[in-house]
Amino acid sequence: MSESLADRLTDYAAVASDLGVDAVALVPGPNFTRVVQHSFMSHERPFVLVIPANGPAAALVPNLELGSWDLVGFDGAVFDWRDQDGYDAAFTDLTRHLSINSLAVEGQIMRVFVHHALKTAQPDLKIIDAEREISALRMIKTDADIAAMQLAIDISERALARTLDSVRLGQSEKDIEQMLVQSLFAEGADDLAFAPIVAAGEGSARPHAKARHDYPVKAGDALLYDFGARKDGFCADITRTVFLDHVSDEGRAVYDTVLRANMAGLAITRAGVTAHDIDDAVTGVLEASPFADRIRTKTGHGLGRDVHEAPYIMRGNHMVLPAGTVYTNEPGLYEIGNFGVRIEDDVLVTEDGCKTLTNFTKELTVLSC
Amino acid sequence: MSESLADRLTDYAAVASDLGVDAVALVPGPNFTRVVQHSFMSHERPFVLVIPANGPAAALVPNLELGSWDLVGFDGAVFDWRDQDGYDAAFTDLTRHLSINSLAVEGQIMRVFVHHALKTAQPDLKIIDAEREISALRMIKTDADIAAMQLAIDISERALARTLDSVRLGQSEKDIEQMLVQSLFAEGADDLAFAPIVAAGEGSARPHAKARHDYPVKAGDALLYDFGARKDGFCADITRTVFLDHVSDEGRAVYDTVLRANMAGLAITRAGVTAHDIDDAVTGVLEASPFADRIRTKTGHGLGRDVHEAPYIMRGNHMVLPAGTVYTNEPGLYEIGNFGVRIEDDVLVTEDGCKTLTNFTKELTVLSC
Repeated sequence: MSESLADRLTDYAAVASDLGVDAVALVPGPNFTRVVQHSFMSHERPFVLVIPANGPAAALVPNLELGSWDLVGFDGAVFDWRDQDGYDAAFTDLTRHLSINSLAVEGQIMRVFVHHALKTAQPDLKIIDAEREISALRMIKTDADIAAMQLAIDISERALARTLDSVRLGQSEKDIEQMLVQSLFAEGADDLAFAPIVAAGEGSARPHAKARHDYPVKAGDALLYDFGARKDGFCADITRTVFLDHVSDEGRAVYDTVLRANMAGLAITRAGVTAHDIDDAVTGVLEASPFADRIRTKTGHGLGRDVHEAPYIMRGNHMVLPAGTVYTNEPGLYEIGNFGVRIEDDVLVTEDGCKTLTNFTKELTVLSC
Repeated sequence: MSESLADRLTDYAAVASDLGVDAVALVPGPNFTRVVQHSFMSHERPFVLVIPANGPAAALVPNLELGSWDLVGFDGAVFDWRDQDGYDAAFTDLTRHLSINSLAVEGQIMRVFVHHALKTAQPDLKIIDAEREISALRMIKTDADIAAMQLAIDISERALARTLDSVRLGQSEKDIEQMLVQSLFAEGADDLAFAPIVAAGEGSARPHAKARHDYPVKAGDALLYDFGARKDGFCADITRTVFLDHVSDEGRAVYDTVLRANMAGLAITRAGVTAHDIDDAVTGVLEASPFADRIRTKTGHGLGRDVHEAPYIMRGNHMVLPAGTVYTNEPGLYEIGNFGVRIEDDVLVTEDGCKTLTNFTKELTVLSC
């Protein structure tokens, strides 16, 4: 990553140039944090950093954030606004100052009210969604990024080990989730990377299940954990599925299939492979199994400051993965009403292969509990 | 709150009618969760529930969520899409099915990529930001909502008590934050309502400061905590500012001013008062003090499923507050480079006054540490 704020701003100016638009706009979120090296909240308050292809950047800043904004070392124009006055005048001043006709925004981060405020200030402003191009600057991780992710992953794995040791038949999914969350913070997490998934029995067949107060885990259940710590701004995202007390032949066969799919993805990962190719290898294993009708998701997604970011590992995405990309390899098989299995690693792409940053065992685990 | 899904959908159909638009769209977030009584993630995957003024609702659902969506009991049309196929066709099918010309959306929740997907599917669709009208249905809290918030607040206050007991001079802000977060989960939080603020010394003058690894707290510092647990889907949001070892005359005078402002807001709160009136009473106290140039924020915001929601407690907002509204009363005074004080209560508006759901002492506290 570029070392100075000025250099990082220049990176986004280049994105604007490449897109043929006059400027890029960033709002609080992972790209914004990367640029200013400071995490801001937005909530109901618009907060926008505009980086023109040519010329100095400008910012629209809620007045109450000026003290924090001073720490960023930004030397461009700042248009601040106070709660009691509203932000319309600041948007008008900002757009007049910039004198641009087109603007690329982060479509998965900017909310409609900011889009509307920009259009209200300058109705002829052309706004395009350049999520992919803007966020691409976060795709290749620096050594410092990877070190932070490794910390987040190590914390997560220690928390999982603690939690598995404590599982007992009859506990609710919610009890187990609570234990997991407490363990994450006891192990040093700054925050949760996302709301954890702890799902057992038929709950494990819902990829984004919520832990239930009223489901006591039973002998024979699959128990799926999908969770991660956030540390120093970076996310872990790991899934392991274990079985309680015993495992059925079907459970074992499904588990083995998912594990083979995961391994097939690792086997072909190296710099230069495409997202399509990895998903094709992984999903190909699932499709060739007797459980093909249980496929519900793509293989995975990029991981970094955001828990879901580019590259999306799916067929049709012919993006070439450079060394330094980190993605999740998370095949799963889900039969609604029965059970699901998912195994998820966080994978660093290297020049000659890959390194799995997750180290927790993937061998079929049957807990005595 | 309406008891059945059908009734709740009817509430939003009425919003569409009142606005004179053909339908309301909801995306995962607090309104969506309120309607379907289930919390969904969205990330890079569009997920939209459309409720026409007349006729049955329809939903666009990521395929991997169908198992969870089944739990909702929704009997309208569902257009699902798989990662590998993309979502454009599902948006086209959804808009054709609905046959609408105008759509009200939650501007502070819906992101631009969903807005663009709707416009791509139906370029002549008129999309308006009706955040205020849509979210207004969450403003009056039910008894169950208030019970959940009280749980979240009680957890938060117990965590604060633990943390204050453990503060020692020389600890970093980050050490203290870590203790606070661990205490929140140990006390039963489901999640953090937002990233906590723990700020001492000149850091306390930045309303949204981030805890620093490299600032050891010192005798005489103001130490500001702004944080909250999330429990059963509802948020707490509490701020207390204490002083370490001793307090200066200036610190005492600022604290007293902020506390009088907070109390002035409580004194005039009852059903029928406007948001403007409360801010006017609170900010009026600050303005009449020698510290008027340290005012940086409005008085507060609504609190519920979202940590910042309507009503926004500020001059110019002439919205009348009905009984059952919960808002934050959080005046503060901030001098950049010096220190800041904020005191924040969560306040339930009642027919004949108010009830502060936060009970933690607001008396000037000087910690021996």
